[in-house]
Amino acid sequence: MTTPRIRRFEDIAPFDSSADIVICGYGGAGASAAYEALKLGADVVVLERSGGGGGATALSSCEMYLGGSGGTSLQKDCGFEDTTENFISYLTTSMGAAGDSERIRVYAEGAAEHFNWAESLGVPYKRAFFPNRDVVPYSDESLLHTGNERASPFKETSAPVPRGHVPSHEGDEGGRIFMDKLMAAVAELGARIECDSRATALVQDRHGRIRGVVARSNGVDRTIEARRGVILTCGGFIMNDEMTMKHLPSLRSIGRPYGNAWDLGDGILMGVAAGGQAINMGEAFMALAFYPPEKLTYGVFVNKRGQRFVNEDAYLARLAHYGAQQDNGEIYLFVQNEDFEPSFYYENLRVAAVGETVEEVEQEAGFPEGALVHTVNYYNQHAAEKRDPLFHKAPDWLKPITEPPFALVSYRYDEVKMPLGDDIGPLMFTLGGLEVQTSGEVLTPDGDVVPGLYAAGRTVAGLPRSGVGYASGMSVGDATFFGRLAGRAAAANGLN
Amino acid sequence: MTTPRIRRFEDIAPFDSSADIVICGYGGAGASAAYEALKLGADVVVLERSGGGGGATALSSCEMYLGGSGGTSLQKDCGFEDTTENFISYLTTSMGAAGDSERIRVYAEGAAEHFNWAESLGVPYKRAFFPNRDVVPYSDESLLHTGNERASPFKETSAPVPRGHVPSHEGDEGGRIFMDKLMAAVAELGARIECDSRATALVQDRHGRIRGVVARSNGVDRTIEARRGVILTCGGFIMNDEMTMKHLPSLRSIGRPYGNAWDLGDGILMGVAAGGQAINMGEAFMALAFYPPEKLTYGVFVNKRGQRFVNEDAYLARLAHYGAQQDNGEIYLFVQNEDFEPSFYYENLRVAAVGETVEEVEQEAGFPEGALVHTVNYYNQHAAEKRDPLFHKAPDWLKPITEPPFALVSYRYDEVKMPLGDDIGPLMFTLGGLEVQTSGEVLTPDGDVVPGLYAAGRTVAGLPRSGVGYASGMSVGDATFFGRLAGRAAAANGLN
Repeated sequence: MTTPRIRRFEDIAPFDSSADIVICGYGGAGASAAYEALKLGADVVVLERSGGGGGATALSSCEMYLGGSGGTSLQKDCGFEDTTENFISYLTTSMGAAGDSERIRVYAEGAAEHFNWAESLGVPYKRAFFPNRDVVPYSDESLLHTGNERASPFKETSAPVPRGHVPSHEGDEGGRIFMDKLMAAVAELGARIECDSRATALVQDRHGRIRGVVARSNGVDRTIEARRGVILTCGGFIMNDEMTMKHLPSLRSIGRPYGNAWDLGDGILMGVAAGGQAINMGEAFMALAFYPPEKLTYGVFVNKRGQRFVNEDAYLARLAHYGAQQDNGEIYLFVQNEDFEPSFYYENLRVAAVGETVEEVEQEAGFPEGALVHTVNYYNQHAAEKRDPLFHKAPDWLKPITEPPFALVSYRYDEVKMPLGDDIGPLMFTLGGLEVQTSGEVLTPDGDVVPGLYAAGRTVAGLPRSGVGYASGMSVGDATFFGRLAGRAAAANGLN
Repeated sequence: MTTPRIRRFEDIAPFDSSADIVICGYGGAGASAAYEALKLGADVVVLERSGGGGGATALSSCEMYLGGSGGTSLQKDCGFEDTTENFISYLTTSMGAAGDSERIRVYAEGAAEHFNWAESLGVPYKRAFFPNRDVVPYSDESLLHTGNERASPFKETSAPVPRGHVPSHEGDEGGRIFMDKLMAAVAELGARIECDSRATALVQDRHGRIRGVVARSNGVDRTIEARRGVILTCGGFIMNDEMTMKHLPSLRSIGRPYGNAWDLGDGILMGVAAGGQAINMGEAFMALAFYPPEKLTYGVFVNKRGQRFVNEDAYLARLAHYGAQQDNGEIYLFVQNEDFEPSFYYENLRVAAVGETVEEVEQEAGFPEGALVHTVNYYNQHAAEKRDPLFHKAPDWLKPITEPPFALVSYRYDEVKMPLGDDIGPLMFTLGGLEVQTSGEVLTPDGDVVPGLYAAGRTVAGLPRSGVGYASGMSVGDATFFGRLAGRAAAANGLN
């Protein structure tokens, strides 16, 4: 029998140690929760399974997807206005039926203040807008588009405002910069940080209330009382092969896990064992980072039938979502010589076919005769008029593909490879987890609260619920924003 | 606080009554489990939440998807051979990465015997093959194709054998016929059937073992000991709006729940509360029953861009799966006059456009100019040669669409309507539930067994895991087959 994830309070006597709040996981969500709880005077223990804090947030670019309130100070200083209504409208369209409207509203209303908080930690944000179609600036600007704002159908319902807020630095170091500042603040506020310590079980009393945790360090278990609450911020489960193969087998079979090595689902499994409910478990973020260089966007993506399936100016997560629907990710980019350059994020991309005419390419690729020719002719005919009647790619990205030689570049999910390591496939991480209130309180399937239990970050089903409308920064934004709310709620628990 | 789903054994003293096995839910799975447990001499109580047994199986056509072992006796008598390898190959292709290979193997090896068992109950099966492309025969044949056997890509990897086994009767009464026979056998074997009795909680001891249930009748709770085990056969959760909106919001928002009124997820929720794991919760069967009449298959399905997206000779669940990917089910059938007839299963289908030429239809429908014209021309050019280079529709269904007038019939998911009731959308039911072994033993997230707890039917993640490869009869076949195995396993529990 595996180690139980729930221990009965009545069997634990007495606890080995005690705190107001125990936070399990010292990544972006956990550190944000600790910060706010400490500010409210709570005595906080943070358990971290690995040797040091940071979590997936430290590994990320630390883009946060922020806006609303007329604009964050960064948006405003760069000349952009972003009303809360506009932000809500965008997020609502993005998440569709899967969206949590209450979570969206609370986030949109508080995101501008959240940016002020991040900046108050000493994280540098340069008042400069990076206009390129890219994933993260390697120059030092701090504001960019990290979603589908400028692409159809989003631009038709919401004013296209950039919302990716990224620490200023040359290179991709945002996560480290942010987490260093945040963890320094948390340490200064007096948190007790315990690394190499894994929460293995929640202590629950017979009324269902969470009373503490069991922590394991060097193979030794000890019990820690949490007088006001336990906050689960253990990351998602993308590194747990068993779980991903059970919950999202189809996506997992074509994608490549991306995250912190300890994104093993600990928090989700403990939360469910305590009576919480895991939802959205079949959804993931997946990235088809075929740009930069942005000029590849002038090409057209086709499936093996030579059909287009998406506007190529969509964001990398949306591209990956639709790509995954094309017979498990068998997709190609048709591009003319003047627009071709190797993708920055993928190495040794296979050129499936080249030719002086579309017919030649089609034939060499073994596509159905005439299918690609039609697609390209139809595209060119309208691109010359700056129109894309099928997918409404923005006029800026429309020009006829008429200059040979032409190439068909494979972005098949079973072929794309990033420089790091040998794994094949688009990067992915999970978007399912515990259902929580905006306060972080964990909910049962009946909508009741599990008393004393909070969660945030990718341990929960948060703001982003699907790759189809994902924007980078939704996850770190959600984790830190709602991490803070969970810290505050736990700190206030039992005090009134 | 909601009624708890777990009661502690230590708090229950003594039980109000006792049995070897308590089965929760008297549908196809529960009755099959009861039958086998009784045959092995167990004392069985069956709790049924509604006023009478039958469950979703009684409401269905009771097709069972069976084959292997060289063929069931019905397949053989109709002249078909079906090796176990061929059956496994088909099921494996159907379920893709989501498939449970062990479950597939056990099912394929035992399905022919399972047919003999069904027939031994007195259920009539006529030795006659119904060759039409249809959903269920309203004539009295008992064997038909209920999946994608004859369609690409399945026909390329598995010999196309019909596997839908349906009780012989004129009309669609198979489920009632089967359940009446099965329930009569169960009654005769001495089961104690308690209708209007809902299992509200499992009784679990401190070692995790399930020891009984709490049953509620007329508002009064009583406890029933289950000496050998409890079997959860409570159906899926398609009728639980709260659960479907949490677990499959996107599909639920475009589909119409189809099932037994009591498919409320009771078994899944109790099983998870006891430590089991719910998987595959985001997947559903959805049906686009645009045929019969089968000659509509000569048409081509297109999305709002005029693109084809599936071979139209695919099975209704596969059609619905791909249809759902087309911007939430905005799909149309382009058909010529000689092939047009109203769909049998949908009423008042909207004709989105008609015309003497494809151009006219395209224009009237407001499709992108030239897109439908190209699709139809391309299709016709190859159909004349009995080829479909894009989707490989079978030659039998290929003929040029050249005889005006032409129509574009809307099968938009927000428009299709069946005669029964006012609800819009393709029928759907859930395919997620508890993870179990082939014995029905419920598994924890760690792969441990929850001792004394079994489950079958749509309370579990069973043989069918996705609409993309679903065949009718997979659900009733799975429920009854693995219901029987669960009954046997529970009956043997604790005896050795």
